[in-house]
Amino acid sequence: MTVTARSVHLAERPTGYPDASTWSIRDTELNAPVDGEVLVKVSHVSLDPAMRGWLNDAKSYIPPVGIDEVMRAGGIGTVVESRHPDFAVGDAVTGSLGVTDHAVLPGKHLTTVDLAVAPAATWLGALGMPGITAWFGLFDVAKVQPGDTVLVSGAAGAVGSIVGQLAKAQGCRVIGIAGGPEKCAWLTDELGFDAAIDYKQGPIHRQLREFAPDGIDVYFDNVGGDMLDSALRSLRLGARIAICGAISGYNATEPVPGPAHYLSLLINRASMAGFIVFDYLDRYPEAIQGIAAMIADGSVIAREHEVAGTVDDFPDTLMMLFSGANTGKLVLSL
Amino acid sequence: MTVTARSVHLAERPTGYPDASTWSIRDTELNAPVDGEVLVKVSHVSLDPAMRGWLNDAKSYIPPVGIDEVMRAGGIGTVVESRHPDFAVGDAVTGSLGVTDHAVLPGKHLTTVDLAVAPAATWLGALGMPGITAWFGLFDVAKVQPGDTVLVSGAAGAVGSIVGQLAKAQGCRVIGIAGGPEKCAWLTDELGFDAAIDYKQGPIHRQLREFAPDGIDVYFDNVGGDMLDSALRSLRLGARIAICGAISGYNATEPVPGPAHYLSLLINRASMAGFIVFDYLDRYPEAIQGIAAMIADGSVIAREHEVAGTVDDFPDTLMMLFSGANTGKLVLSL
Repeated sequence: MTVTARSVHLAERPTGYPDASTWSIRDTELNAPVDGEVLVKVSHVSLDPAMRGWLNDAKSYIPPVGIDEVMRAGGIGTVVESRHPDFAVGDAVTGSLGVTDHAVLPGKHLTTVDLAVAPAATWLGALGMPGITAWFGLFDVAKVQPGDTVLVSGAAGAVGSIVGQLAKAQGCRVIGIAGGPEKCAWLTDELGFDAAIDYKQGPIHRQLREFAPDGIDVYFDNVGGDMLDSALRSLRLGARIAICGAISGYNATEPVPGPAHYLSLLINRASMAGFIVFDYLDRYPEAIQGIAAMIADGSVIAREHEVAGTVDDFPDTLMMLFSGANTGKLVLSL
Repeated sequence: MTVTARSVHLAERPTGYPDASTWSIRDTELNAPVDGEVLVKVSHVSLDPAMRGWLNDAKSYIPPVGIDEVMRAGGIGTVVESRHPDFAVGDAVTGSLGVTDHAVLPGKHLTTVDLAVAPAATWLGALGMPGITAWFGLFDVAKVQPGDTVLVSGAAGAVGSIVGQLAKAQGCRVIGIAGGPEKCAWLTDELGFDAAIDYKQGPIHRQLREFAPDGIDVYFDNVGGDMLDSALRSLRLGARIAICGAISGYNATEPVPGPAHYLSLLINRASMAGFIVFDYLDRYPEAIQGIAAMIADGSVIAREHEVAGTVDDFPDTLMMLFSGANTGKLVLSL
């Protein structure tokens, strides 16, 4: 028995924003799984800012997606056929399934998820890569401490919204940066952030001076650009910056300026460190269990922005990340 | 008995390079020392890149020099009159003596130095602030390890020349960046650096790729600008950058661009931290004893660039730092 998979392939590398010419969407006959493999019917595709970087032919923390390959994506699916002892038909699994509706994958690259703990989309958000990224970035990289003033950019996004809530639960004062009054209201009114800066309402460094007149101890950066530079201008002694991403520059066609105020690191004996969540693979359970417990006790609210459609809707849905159209974790439900 | 001190005062804050209008050089009658104070005849004035920052009216790690105040400077001198029990007439002392030929200071701000261990100028260089800066920046901030490939900018300067030699003694591969063939030859032929990059001979990142094809583990930055950005492009996994200074931008009249390649910190899980040597005050003896032992056993060569003159020569001598005219620690001997 063969299965037809409909998939989004990388047709050509984009300059600037991806567009129709970036993708080729087509059907492929999959071979049946061999020993050790599993056939998965994909139900949820994860959309992540990092995807833009995977399209570039540049040395990075992971090889780029190859031309004509199925676009890389995390996902959730159901096992349809298994030739791996750890997986049974009907199991819900997560892994790098790709932007496709069916995939045959080695079982060792999959993990079962318990949909009684949280719905599928949450396993791609608060209990998935974004939540795990927030956890290790905040605790291990930024070494957050109770009482710290914590600033997070992309605060209404999948990672930032968890960062802020974890920091609140640690006894920090939390300021989020997001775009537009609705996102900002969500941060303060529902997630319990102490303040939200709407970057569309004037210079960030001025708003930051108002909301954090004594400066910040931690900055968790998902955006880069002016937000990073403004944060640098507000560092307190011994501040820590965790560099998680820089979505503001991912689609740039001109060189992106660096953070002009980096010498604030010297003046304030501060540090700035980059990290990649994959390095914490052995410790993922620690983060997942921690966040699951906080969802259960109400101290973390997991929010997903689900778009229902087919893999054909992937290109347009991806662009929502770069226009700031999503609040919470963006997921394409097939 | 009163003493006349000839001193360099800050007349007005410079924009760009300091010039004649920056300084007022004049004689002042000093009051005799009161209890706890010491009168010092200054023999050696330290010239440091950081001095440029002290002239700016900006929040920093230390208050700016006030208008009309004697210019701040480290120095070495001899006790002429003492009303402090720890100091006797004839003692050699170091401290923040100022750009002056005589100073009355609280004894608690002075430290005796042993001129049998090293000559006065060395107490301002390898055994003074620059050497101590090199020590803690390399060991505590950059956490250098044997086998690391270490890059240092301003490598022929007071700090950089010690950084490179300390790293060599730790079993590192050391590459220095300096200006001109003579400085570069000094680094490789006399100080034992493995390679020297002459920044006047073409793009640094290309030369760096040649000398460190596998990248660098540590970058000790005294210069900023293109050197920092080039170093970022060559980071290895887990690399550490210690931000000690940024002399390339100290006299800028336009905003200085930030390091455009800072996302290399993310890709390489690297970190960049600023530091100020004053934070290590309690541990200065550790660095001084360590470096003194290495001077004694020949593993560190201390070099000073002494200019003989009067305090009137301070303005011109200071400019040597910014034109790269000095090799080793720049000292004005009175």
